[in-house]
Amino acid sequence: MLPRIYLAGPDVFLPDAAEMGDRKKRLCAKYGFEGVYPMDSEADLDGLSSRDAALRIGALNHDLIAGCDAVVAHVTPFRGPSADVGTVYEMGYGAGVGLIVCAYTNVAVDFTKRTAEFLRGNVHRASDGRLRDADGMAIENWQLVDNLMLESCVVRSGGHLVLHAAAADEVFTSLEGFEECLRLLR
Amino acid sequence: MLPRIYLAGPDVFLPDAAEMGDRKKRLCAKYGFEGVYPMDSEADLDGLSSRDAALRIGALNHDLIAGCDAVVAHVTPFRGPSADVGTVYEMGYGAGVGLIVCAYTNVAVDFTKRTAEFLRGNVHRASDGRLRDADGMAIENWQLVDNLMLESCVVRSGGHLVLHAAAADEVFTSLEGFEECLRLLR
Repeated sequence: MLPRIYLAGPDVFLPDAAEMGDRKKRLCAKYGFEGVYPMDSEADLDGLSSRDAALRIGALNHDLIAGCDAVVAHVTPFRGPSADVGTVYEMGYGAGVGLIVCAYTNVAVDFTKRTAEFLRGNVHRASDGRLRDADGMAIENWQLVDNLMLESCVVRSGGHLVLHAAAADEVFTSLEGFEECLRLLR
Repeated sequence: MLPRIYLAGPDVFLPDAAEMGDRKKRLCAKYGFEGVYPMDSEADLDGLSSRDAALRIGALNHDLIAGCDAVVAHVTPFRGPSADVGTVYEMGYGAGVGLIVCAYTNVAVDFTKRTAEFLRGNVHRASDGRLRDADGMAIENWQLVDNLMLESCVVRSGGHLVLHAAAADEVFTSLEGFEECLRLLR
């Protein structure tokens, strides 16, 4: 049986989400892996309330992850300076159940810089020496790609983090970084 | 030995982060728990590069979580429509290693509404019937508090999700929802 890779990412929000899943699976096959996409579970949502339908999808995704050997997470910033929280959650769950976690981002800009841009420069150096926003909340300044727990996850689990500066119209669709993760995993 | 609760949240970014940890630990003690705060590990960061220091802190946090029985996560929206990704990662890791995960938010507004506000109303109903943003990326519409994986995590792990509408100047500091999580856990 081929090693199974859970394909975490905001890809499921794309207009052509299913097609993106197929593209990723074909790349997985090229490198000797089986790609597992969140939409693979055929959830029967008939008759369920909105909340119950969501919980059913969530439960199936948990089970898909637990049945894999690795996660490759798409952590391009999504609606804010950080990665999509659903993706980040799946990195955590994957690491917790013992999977190797790789991640790629299509925006190769330091997290501190991205956060300052998101805050429109409304950042100051506080008396404790830390960068803080208008609410006084500190801004991480570790020269990393996102919150330190994400990079820690990748390193601890034995995975790889790949940065790729994609063109502006390809930040959610470029698969250069994804393919590099597969190369490194192999 | 008292059941140990990992105190996940953007609390560590507050100007008085250590004091917030002490407040949470006192509340934990009141309900028969031992609170474990991310800053509890005395990390010796001397001589480490910025990245290595961050990875050392991340490693210690992973170990703290693995040594606990439950997580209570503060998921108030942080720099965007969703919770802090560090916190979300820790929910995932905690669930993965078998902990009960509770969460509380101090903003009791539906995720879809919050996301539309974040996007300044730049949201449309696409031909597939889904709400989408200007990039065509779908907006979750499940009548939940955040991405569906977070609520799924709480339900599957046997935890509780508490919504509390805090005053604007207390969204990052109110502990009403936190204390309710402790009550429910007990």
